[in-house]
Amino acid sequence: MSDQDPLVIFTPSGKRGRVPRGTPVLQAARKLGVDLDSVCGGRGICSKCQVTPAFGDFPKHGVHVEPQALSDWNAVEERYDRVRGLKEGRRLGCQACIEGDVVIDVPAESQVHRQVIRKRADTRALHMNPAVKLCYVEVAEPDMHEPSGDFERLSQALQAQWGIEGVTADLSLLAGLQQVLRKGGWKVTVALHRDHTGAAPRILQLWPGLHEGGIFGLAVDLGSTTIAAHLTDLDTGEVRASSGLMNPQIRFGEDLMSRVSYVMMNPGGTEEMRDAVRRALATLAAELIAEAGLAPEQVLDVVVVCNPVMHHLLLGLDPTELGQAPFALAVSEALSLPAAKLGLDTINPRARVYLLPCIAGHVGADAAAVALSEAPERSEDLALIIDVGTNAELLLGNRTRVLACSSPTGPAFEGAQISSGQRAAPGAIESVEIDPVTKEPRFRVIGCDLWSDDPGFAEATAASGVTGICGSGIIEALAEMRMAGLMDGSGLIGSAEQTGTARSRPEGRTHAYLLHDGSAEGGPVITVTQGDVRAIQLAKSALYAGARLLMDEMGVDHVDRVVLAGAFGAHISAKHAMVLGMIPDVPLEKVTSAGNAAGTGARIALCDTAARAAIEANVRRITKIETAIAPAFQAHFVAANAIPHASDPFPELRRIAPLPEVSFNTGGGDGGGRGGRRRRRG
Amino acid sequence: MSDQDPLVIFTPSGKRGRVPRGTPVLQAARKLGVDLDSVCGGRGICSKCQVTPAFGDFPKHGVHVEPQALSDWNAVEERYDRVRGLKEGRRLGCQACIEGDVVIDVPAESQVHRQVIRKRADTRALHMNPAVKLCYVEVAEPDMHEPSGDFERLSQALQAQWGIEGVTADLSLLAGLQQVLRKGGWKVTVALHRDHTGAAPRILQLWPGLHEGGIFGLAVDLGSTTIAAHLTDLDTGEVRASSGLMNPQIRFGEDLMSRVSYVMMNPGGTEEMRDAVRRALATLAAELIAEAGLAPEQVLDVVVVCNPVMHHLLLGLDPTELGQAPFALAVSEALSLPAAKLGLDTINPRARVYLLPCIAGHVGADAAAVALSEAPERSEDLALIIDVGTNAELLLGNRTRVLACSSPTGPAFEGAQISSGQRAAPGAIESVEIDPVTKEPRFRVIGCDLWSDDPGFAEATAASGVTGICGSGIIEALAEMRMAGLMDGSGLIGSAEQTGTARSRPEGRTHAYLLHDGSAEGGPVITVTQGDVRAIQLAKSALYAGARLLMDEMGVDHVDRVVLAGAFGAHISAKHAMVLGMIPDVPLEKVTSAGNAAGTGARIALCDTAARAAIEANVRRITKIETAIAPAFQAHFVAANAIPHASDPFPELRRIAPLPEVSFNTGGGDGGGRGGRRRRRG
Repeated sequence: MSDQDPLVIFTPSGKRGRVPRGTPVLQAARKLGVDLDSVCGGRGICSKCQVTPAFGDFPKHGVHVEPQALSDWNAVEERYDRVRGLKEGRRLGCQACIEGDVVIDVPAESQVHRQVIRKRADTRALHMNPAVKLCYVEVAEPDMHEPSGDFERLSQALQAQWGIEGVTADLSLLAGLQQVLRKGGWKVTVALHRDHTGAAPRILQLWPGLHEGGIFGLAVDLGSTTIAAHLTDLDTGEVRASSGLMNPQIRFGEDLMSRVSYVMMNPGGTEEMRDAVRRALATLAAELIAEAGLAPEQVLDVVVVCNPVMHHLLLGLDPTELGQAPFALAVSEALSLPAAKLGLDTINPRARVYLLPCIAGHVGADAAAVALSEAPERSEDLALIIDVGTNAELLLGNRTRVLACSSPTGPAFEGAQISSGQRAAPGAIESVEIDPVTKEPRFRVIGCDLWSDDPGFAEATAASGVTGICGSGIIEALAEMRMAGLMDGSGLIGSAEQTGTARSRPEGRTHAYLLHDGSAEGGPVITVTQGDVRAIQLAKSALYAGARLLMDEMGVDHVDRVVLAGAFGAHISAKHAMVLGMIPDVPLEKVTSAGNAAGTGARIALCDTAARAAIEANVRRITKIETAIAPAFQAHFVAANAIPHASDPFPELRRIAPLPEVSFNTGGGDGGGRGGRRRRRG
Repeated sequence: MSDQDPLVIFTPSGKRGRVPRGTPVLQAARKLGVDLDSVCGGRGICSKCQVTPAFGDFPKHGVHVEPQALSDWNAVEERYDRVRGLKEGRRLGCQACIEGDVVIDVPAESQVHRQVIRKRADTRALHMNPAVKLCYVEVAEPDMHEPSGDFERLSQALQAQWGIEGVTADLSLLAGLQQVLRKGGWKVTVALHRDHTGAAPRILQLWPGLHEGGIFGLAVDLGSTTIAAHLTDLDTGEVRASSGLMNPQIRFGEDLMSRVSYVMMNPGGTEEMRDAVRRALATLAAELIAEAGLAPEQVLDVVVVCNPVMHHLLLGLDPTELGQAPFALAVSEALSLPAAKLGLDTINPRARVYLLPCIAGHVGADAAAVALSEAPERSEDLALIIDVGTNAELLLGNRTRVLACSSPTGPAFEGAQISSGQRAAPGAIESVEIDPVTKEPRFRVIGCDLWSDDPGFAEATAASGVTGICGSGIIEALAEMRMAGLMDGSGLIGSAEQTGTARSRPEGRTHAYLLHDGSAEGGPVITVTQGDVRAIQLAKSALYAGARLLMDEMGVDHVDRVVLAGAFGAHISAKHAMVLGMIPDVPLEKVTSAGNAAGTGARIALCDTAARAAIEANVRRITKIETAIAPAFQAHFVAANAIPHASDPFPELRRIAPLPEVSFNTGGGDGGGRGGRRRRRG
């Protein structure tokens, strides 16, 4: 380029360079490596390449931009503006030509790899780089002198007009190809799948002419209990609709291990459960598509995250091996499959389904998704990430190294195995406070912001009633009992005499604390029993022992911060969790909630194939710790049985929470729970 | 290697070299690039690497081989011989070690790329290089400390033990993977698909331990009328069973054009015909598998050749575009698909199906298969290859260039549109002679070697009767009539007065020649009518015009040789064909029959992936000539209407056949047929 050529400066990238007079802005952007979108390849019909030229003096850039810096509107731009309307100040980048020095702003919506805002700043930024993109092409008509298939001429067009070589297509696409080409007058929009694997690009869908309805993907968090899906615009990253439903496999078994047992006891059980979950996924997809008013053919990519048992059951792989040591997965690496293979017949049958890799036999693709969302491998400080579900998956790491394990907490944290336990639903006690002097409790239930001792509580909760305790409620109740001196460090609930409150009531040879007596209104009597304490002790000991095992492997005795992922993590009180010794001792402000990090990871993988490559590489690098065979696990488990802990000092906790030194063990009764048997995973 | 190292000479390759004392023969063979098979990778269990050492003096090789040149039998060899038996003089190449100078013969059955004998020496030699091969591997057991999927460990074993990277597998294979691995004690045989396309290697099947049942493929010639298939051993190339059945699509239309019409008139017609032909293919495969006593899972590769309409109907692609100019194929290049996608549920569902490329809109994968079998691109002299079916496909070429076209001959050559015409079946007249003096005919029918004037003919044909004339019979009848002066050069049949025989009988305003009067025995009266002559004239003019069009393009006025392919080509009399002017004038010995060259091409492609790559490249290089739009075609067609030809001299023919200069045109009657309308293709 000569110095006489006009200088073009793109914002916000700041990329600049000289191009020959008359160069279209789109071409200049490509030449200078500026991210400027185009679906129609510069034909002035898709309007994806809109830019905003700026005129006048720009001392910062050292240029003055004349009003004539860009060519006048041409017929194509005029027609576009007349028919579709161009925003004030905008030009079509493929039509406007550079005639003099100019500053050109590329608005966010004209960038292919635009950044999508995520709520928390400490995690991986999400760039749009989806596996499926649209390309508009003009295909050569058939020529008897040079006979070739319509598909081959379409391939040649993609190569010539987009530089995309070696495309493939499924038979079902070929079946409709000739009609679409003719309907579009040999101009078509191609939905092209290209991921990070180097597999040949696949044509997933064709539309006659320019397709303007957009393309979409589903991010699916396939849990043992619920299935959640987010219908996401693959152009903008925007979630257009979200929904969830119960995993219908629940009728085969509440927890994963009972589903594995079902397979072992029932020939054909794998296929039954496979079909059930696939039908549910297809139904969920259909609902989302209807809600967003889309055509099924527009949904072209799916990312699924799930635990290893769900992973195998969705794929139709027998999960039996996952129920016993050495917990061998049939396949652990990431998978890419056509939707039709998973019976997903409510979306485009050629859509691709991507499953994140599993980390180990019971650290699944959901844990990988958490790792993708929370990016411990980029953390400067040492982060412990805990995804609490029926099993807990733990990640510990920083820039130098990341470790992973799962811990068999069982479902107690979800309110199961608790005498008054229930799922989180209106009427469930979710927060508890106990006055350290009077030993009187107050609580809140889901669906009402009032405390139980606030005026109007009874009226406000009349509809739901007070029905039981959910997972976060039982944690708070126990922690409050510990802080109020109602329960000692070994987890033993004191008698009325020992605690000074009639709410401590004998129950067999142990005691229970009365939280709420609804019997006058025909409701339940809600107590925290010694059995409840033992169930939570088992769960929290497993969780803490898992964390300590990872810390041992890392060679540390503390972590810098704790991230609680999962729906449970979003509702749990960090202070109460620490009182129970569920999580290692850190300053309270260093405990954060990541929300549904697995679901976020699924969305990231859906929008960005580079993230898929990254998590696949990271999962290979993660050091996997198997708690079931680690000799230290049992010792850590036993020591963690105390509340908060038998030996770890928890100095940060002691600064903020009273932990009365009481002991209710009189030699009789059930002081047990220590060295408790390990439950089977599930 | 030092000069002190023993010298090993392999026969028949003649490859030689020195290897360290103690090197196993298999290892020495690999080092020296000698083709020595092994499925078990040198573990002494598959016995594929058997060799025959030779001892004594070998002046030709300059060595003397001592009895101790190979190590003594070891325990593995002894056990193998005891259990399975080793042929006299044979050793296991992976066990026997080289201790001194030695000459080692690799028998044909121990070569991977062994050559399969084909009947004719002038065509491409067939080397075994199938897409599917067996590999025995030992897989690492799962390790909780280094968790990875069973599939990933299988992949690693294939990489470490066979150097095969990046294998993939279908979900249906993964579903059975864990069981097979455990059943085989982590030792399995893998059937691996690797073709010429560079696609990732695919695991198609797994067997516990060493699989010794062999693997097989199907070579399918999918014709408009019949479907023929050959079940072929992918190790030896041997055809284990062959069978054929009628194409059930016949009920939708006898010829291709009526099937295209059926699709145009009947919504869902494509799918109906698709399903019919797929069911027929699956049935045929099941019959062959049963006949050979195999398990369906052992059939792992299929090659299909067919014309473009059958190609589209098998794939479920609407053939409408093939019924009208510009005859655009939906897809023209070679395709590779899983069998399940074609409903082939009687073989391994993961088997691959390979379809050869189509050359043009009506020069199909069958013509490509003929090109593969007959290899015109390797011919020193200029060869015209004609595959005569309902359409005729023509290839003209030599080392410098190959041309192709199809010619719309219609089904007259198959006995259709002929007054007494019938398919080739017992009772059909297949050969005719007419005495040039008496004008009396004699003939032979299919199913009897006697001529009709031989004693005992009536008894010998009593069962079948004399029922009609098949394609080769009508050609001979017409040619004999021309040579006997019963029909003139314009194709007009003379009257009894003009020809001097009462067998010329008036029929309307024209005449017919009486070939056989079976009415006394209640059989048919078989005549050759003027209409029959016109039908054959139209067909042969189209065929000859196609050949001339190719010769024009090649810039020649004669060809060196003519190859007749197809079943019809195998039965036709070259001399009679030339009398009719069906084929260009060449010395009679230069007309050869290639038999079912399309079927042979399918077998070659099945056994040798290099042949697939070669034909794909050759098809791209072939110059396609579209007869429908060639201005010269009509002129060639008109000139070819005369018998043998209006202007071409046919000097070779005139040397061997009398062509009386008679003319029966008296100005009245139907002297037409010239400039006849072109029929639609089909």
